[in-house]
Amino acid sequence: MASPPTSTARAPLTYREAGVDIDVGDELVERIKPLAKMTRIPEVLADVGGFAGLCALPSGIDDPVLVSGTDGVGTKLKVAFLTGIHDTIGFDLVGMCVNDVLTTGARPLFFLDYFATGKLDVAVGECVVKGIAEACRESGCALLGGETAELPGMYSAGEYDLAGFAVGVVARSKIVDGKRVVEGDKVIGLRSSGLHSNGYSLARRVVLDAMALDLGARPAKLEGKSVAEALMIPTRLYARHVKAVLAAGVDVRAMSHVTGGGLPGNLPRVLPDGLGVRLRAPWKLPGILDLIAERVEVGELRRVFNLGIGFGFVVPERDRERTMKTLLAIGEEPIDLGDVVRVPAETAFEARVIFP
Amino acid sequence: MASPPTSTARAPLTYREAGVDIDVGDELVERIKPLAKMTRIPEVLADVGGFAGLCALPSGIDDPVLVSGTDGVGTKLKVAFLTGIHDTIGFDLVGMCVNDVLTTGARPLFFLDYFATGKLDVAVGECVVKGIAEACRESGCALLGGETAELPGMYSAGEYDLAGFAVGVVARSKIVDGKRVVEGDKVIGLRSSGLHSNGYSLARRVVLDAMALDLGARPAKLEGKSVAEALMIPTRLYARHVKAVLAAGVDVRAMSHVTGGGLPGNLPRVLPDGLGVRLRAPWKLPGILDLIAERVEVGELRRVFNLGIGFGFVVPERDRERTMKTLLAIGEEPIDLGDVVRVPAETAFEARVIFP
Repeated sequence: MASPPTSTARAPLTYREAGVDIDVGDELVERIKPLAKMTRIPEVLADVGGFAGLCALPSGIDDPVLVSGTDGVGTKLKVAFLTGIHDTIGFDLVGMCVNDVLTTGARPLFFLDYFATGKLDVAVGECVVKGIAEACRESGCALLGGETAELPGMYSAGEYDLAGFAVGVVARSKIVDGKRVVEGDKVIGLRSSGLHSNGYSLARRVVLDAMALDLGARPAKLEGKSVAEALMIPTRLYARHVKAVLAAGVDVRAMSHVTGGGLPGNLPRVLPDGLGVRLRAPWKLPGILDLIAERVEVGELRRVFNLGIGFGFVVPERDRERTMKTLLAIGEEPIDLGDVVRVPAETAFEARVIFP
Repeated sequence: MASPPTSTARAPLTYREAGVDIDVGDELVERIKPLAKMTRIPEVLADVGGFAGLCALPSGIDDPVLVSGTDGVGTKLKVAFLTGIHDTIGFDLVGMCVNDVLTTGARPLFFLDYFATGKLDVAVGECVVKGIAEACRESGCALLGGETAELPGMYSAGEYDLAGFAVGVVARSKIVDGKRVVEGDKVIGLRSSGLHSNGYSLARRVVLDAMALDLGARPAKLEGKSVAEALMIPTRLYARHVKAVLAAGVDVRAMSHVTGGGLPGNLPRVLPDGLGVRLRAPWKLPGILDLIAERVEVGELRRVFNLGIGFGFVVPERDRERTMKTLLAIGEEPIDLGDVVRVPAETAFEARVIFP
């Protein structure tokens, strides 16, 4: 780090001069308070905790097990920086973490975020946390805490990184772990909204570099959306879908959150050995994936992107109908994705998902 | 991001070419598994959880309340990059989070980490996580999960960011929240090892820029340590100290983790309105702080650094002796920091700590 002239003088040095402005940080904290309050659930002990967040357990959960996951939003951040769209990236962050927690049958309980930047911009920081708070509220979890880190020299001007942590709770007897999945079970998929928060290093290379599309361009495949809009579509939250299906009494045997690795990388994660999924006729790809498919080999496309499916349920055949009806009833268009089939024990992990 | 020649050709694009190597990420995950296993506690449901980590609650905690905190290590990272010392920064990360959770009287339960870098270096990543795992084990919490993010173009070569997330649990009736602190209570301090993980932007400006000291230099005030060694001294973990004091039956009325803001910014966070702390005769500063004090005005020094005290207990006078004895018995040199005193209601937050 180059030293400004003052550093060679004998004048005392200050934190502010070193690039950290505590007042700006405090102002952001003040702006975040009402946002966090908006997400409060009855379990939060709001009047306690100077150093940490406190949250009781929901009553009526027998032998409670905590479920926790952490994630970031990858280089979708770069698109947020390019487009100046900062109010939905927090929504992506919560989605990436909470959707993971949901796969165990857990109810999301609380969330914490880490926001790091070189020079704190209160307006941008507030915008990001607003997105986080909205997603927390939609998924029923409290924004229990967070850290805003001003790290001079660590990030390029106008850039920041984000990490999220989600905690949920489930009764031990109701943990969904895939162990009971058997041949013949049905796989039902929920659509993704777009790329969600995976594969952006490749997506940006394809759309912005190789195709050299302008952020404002509106190629036909994006059905009226601009490249910027299509790339920034927020990750979907599946909390209400999981809640509805479980409430309907469906015997959910496994759930999968389709993130990095796509369907081949994520569906097998919750299947017992020797089982795979045979997918049915292909479904319609989201416009942005359809566009990217022009320049990415199909195998790579399947490994890197969610292919339009963001979340999957594995249910016994007898519950297939009820699962579809339940999802339709909450306005979802569930996809009859395929069937659980036997595969040779030696089948490679990703080869356990068989495309039509 | 500049486009390599291939991007203008019609050749299909790949994730690897876009800067993300899934295989390298997978290799790091494999190396982390045994480290995480080393931290396992009986409550962890090790055989479950493809998408998230699962952890039961310890038995015998009546009306359990979850306590959670998140933090990073600030620009101490920059010193890790400069010195190439990567095996203790994870220890700092756990310390920053777990020490916060401890202030409520909670027992640390599990920890998750977020490691983000531009180009993944498996050796460095393993080194960082090793430090995290060691600190988790020392504080009795399980490394339940983590995220390794490869973000091309987000970080300078050889740099990374770290965020941590800790969850602990405490019986509702045993929450330590400072509400019962009264005038005349005693404040007992635990020494810090050095700067811990706060104030590094200023510390680096002073030591590396203004004083222009070489990382290998060994100024007298560092008592034999090099500048690199002194700056990288890991944050202390106070889990065993809190455990011992609570186990001794001390009526702990408040605990404070001295981080950014120093003693004036952190002691008042757990005091009822109208109360402050009158500090006794000054104690010996760690060498690195003694060195920094040459070039930083005393008020700024107190606001930015921990001043050699990393953690504080507030106890009633009748328990002062027992607290000191208990800490001495586990090899600690507790500091009789001062007394809780009345201050005018309008006293500014930071002015509630009165220096000798």
